[in-house]
Amino acid sequence: MHAEIITIGDEILIGQIVDTNSAWMAKELTKYGISVTKISSISDEAEEIIETVEAAMKRSPLVLMTGGLGPTNDDITKKTLCDYFGMKLVQDDELYRKIQERLARYGIPMNRFNCEQALIPDGARIIPNNYGSAPCMWFEKNDSVLASMPGVPFEMKGIMQNGLISAIKKYFSTPEIVHKTIMTEGIGESVLADMLSNWEDNLPKNMKLAYLPSPGKVRLRLSITGNNKDELEKLVDLEVKKLQELLPNNIFAYDDQAIEEIVAKLLLEKGKTMATAESCTGGYIAHLITSHAGSSAYFKGSVISYANEIKENLLGVNPKDLEELGAVSQEVVEQMAIGARKAINTDYAVATSGIAGPDGGTEDKPVGTVWIALAGDFGVISEKLELYKVRERNIKVSAFKVLNLLRKELEK
Amino acid sequence: MHAEIITIGDEILIGQIVDTNSAWMAKELTKYGISVTKISSISDEAEEIIETVEAAMKRSPLVLMTGGLGPTNDDITKKTLCDYFGMKLVQDDELYRKIQERLARYGIPMNRFNCEQALIPDGARIIPNNYGSAPCMWFEKNDSVLASMPGVPFEMKGIMQNGLISAIKKYFSTPEIVHKTIMTEGIGESVLADMLSNWEDNLPKNMKLAYLPSPGKVRLRLSITGNNKDELEKLVDLEVKKLQELLPNNIFAYDDQAIEEIVAKLLLEKGKTMATAESCTGGYIAHLITSHAGSSAYFKGSVISYANEIKENLLGVNPKDLEELGAVSQEVVEQMAIGARKAINTDYAVATSGIAGPDGGTEDKPVGTVWIALAGDFGVISEKLELYKVRERNIKVSAFKVLNLLRKELEK
Repeated sequence: MHAEIITIGDEILIGQIVDTNSAWMAKELTKYGISVTKISSISDEAEEIIETVEAAMKRSPLVLMTGGLGPTNDDITKKTLCDYFGMKLVQDDELYRKIQERLARYGIPMNRFNCEQALIPDGARIIPNNYGSAPCMWFEKNDSVLASMPGVPFEMKGIMQNGLISAIKKYFSTPEIVHKTIMTEGIGESVLADMLSNWEDNLPKNMKLAYLPSPGKVRLRLSITGNNKDELEKLVDLEVKKLQELLPNNIFAYDDQAIEEIVAKLLLEKGKTMATAESCTGGYIAHLITSHAGSSAYFKGSVISYANEIKENLLGVNPKDLEELGAVSQEVVEQMAIGARKAINTDYAVATSGIAGPDGGTEDKPVGTVWIALAGDFGVISEKLELYKVRERNIKVSAFKVLNLLRKELEK
Repeated sequence: MHAEIITIGDEILIGQIVDTNSAWMAKELTKYGISVTKISSISDEAEEIIETVEAAMKRSPLVLMTGGLGPTNDDITKKTLCDYFGMKLVQDDELYRKIQERLARYGIPMNRFNCEQALIPDGARIIPNNYGSAPCMWFEKNDSVLASMPGVPFEMKGIMQNGLISAIKKYFSTPEIVHKTIMTEGIGESVLADMLSNWEDNLPKNMKLAYLPSPGKVRLRLSITGNNKDELEKLVDLEVKKLQELLPNNIFAYDDQAIEEIVAKLLLEKGKTMATAESCTGGYIAHLITSHAGSSAYFKGSVISYANEIKENLLGVNPKDLEELGAVSQEVVEQMAIGARKAINTDYAVATSGIAGPDGGTEDKPVGTVWIALAGDFGVISEKLELYKVRERNIKVSAFKVLNLLRKELEK
């Protein structure tokens, strides 16, 4: 079974927001064996909405749509869909009460925009929104379903997880699909492709391979569709085993886990704690780690030492080394890691010091020169990276590489 | 003039990557008065590519496309476009040399995938890619232009900025468009819409208003298209003045600057420095600040104090207060800000301490309770926030609010 996604909003078309909803919805649908064949972003205009909905519902049994359901005047999706499906807007009393209650909690009275939010097309099925005022509306026409949701990401996610997915599973019967992602590091995409070309040419006919490069790593994704899930999984496992033999040192995870999640799992298993001492990554590693709920169980803190005096005062780096060797040096990054481990009192500490760019490079140390280190009860290890000219990429790759050092140590 | 964007890649359709390219390209085109009317994400399949390109080129004079130009077997865009436009693939000797040189710098020999990258459709115009192997290919058909670029974001951005935009400006003559974004904080979207409805109803007919809510703030965007840029700007300025009178205390910026950029500008102007002491934001504020090149001029460092002992040892928070009042309290957050200012030796320090969620709340301090503080030579100020149940949102809003405290102080 396949589906399409439509996102509505001028803010996407003028590039003021990135459409993260589509990726999230696509991932969720894929999990349930529904493949997304098209994602369209269109403007808040009635004609465009109708044309796009009509074409999508002709092509696809399921169309998910987000956006255009806010309380303000520029949101016209509900009225447009109501007209298109030949329905009338009527007040949903339960919805009215829920909106009133939600506002009352914040001490806000109902205004006319909130009242309009309680109006629902009379032939649409309602799937509740536990985090906001606009519910999901489910329309059926010629065996196709359109589900329209608000564009606020956490409201859309709540609707999908608490009602829409099970409604879809009930309404449609879906084939089986098995995906497996193999995370590799240390080999670039084209060299990897060359190494794997023989294996790739001999994959089962209905199995697809994709290369997904991202900063510091290449993800390989195998996909196969069929009727018997167990059989599909066996076929995929067989190919993964062949791949493990071809890449004995470069696979670091399966199923698209982030490196900080892998590290978190290992730290929790071993009852160990960590800290970071960040210069060129500027807090990005700490942010990655603390984005995950429960991180306080293994993460105790960080020192972000952008200025040299912080490296000296809080991390105990030797001022002489800073002066003679510079902040971007093996000695300094190792002292940062050792100092953070001591100051924050953890089992492990990772450290970064480098020239993220775009400026600040020298002949000896061009932009993209980064030193990373890991300190633990074993002592300290470090590595020099020669990265890129792009600041964002340098920050991301440095974070990945130093967390990968910690992963290797934890997996020993 | 209008344009469409097509992004190619199964990784988008299965939700493994978020399509950030489209937003970036749309923003860039909008700057030059080209409005994007549709963004489509489709799969790596020849039939789908041809169908989508054909429809887009019929509707729009300009179509930008990314993705599907990598060196590996799952990338078929180039061959498909070559066939569709009735061209032949021929080796581009200059491109061959450039790829060879690039690989040589990393000590990698040319393989067959790299050789294929030097093949170019013989009727396509080439716009160089300074950061990768696959250049931009410019195709013309029935007065419409298709520009196909690689999907790696920094390669695409380089091509757009160093050649494609000027090629587009030369080829098309475009009408004027003026956008103005007014950033507001402190009032929710629907209350704001109610406050502004009279003003909105009386906007000039060809002026559009959009509400763009995001964590902690609502952006208002006015757009107008016409022939005389000066005149359009005057019309927009007039409406902005009316808005300033309606919202004397809630506008904090224009033109969609991030709060950390506004703070950076103010700190640089005044020659002041800052630090952060972060508990619930876990390094996110430091990361926001250090994402921008040149931040070392005003940002000296941070202490991320996830564990209480770090609050005591590195920030000098009173252990008695931590025990009796808890880490999420006015006293503790104020001591964190004062302690960070002292330890990191800066003019200002901001601090956060709260329950980001989804767990960890109590009856007294439910998830979403956050204390923020700002310390400076004036002493210390703090504020209690009652936020949401969603971790990511709480981190973002807390970061915004505490940086906004600093902005207000700097603007005094």
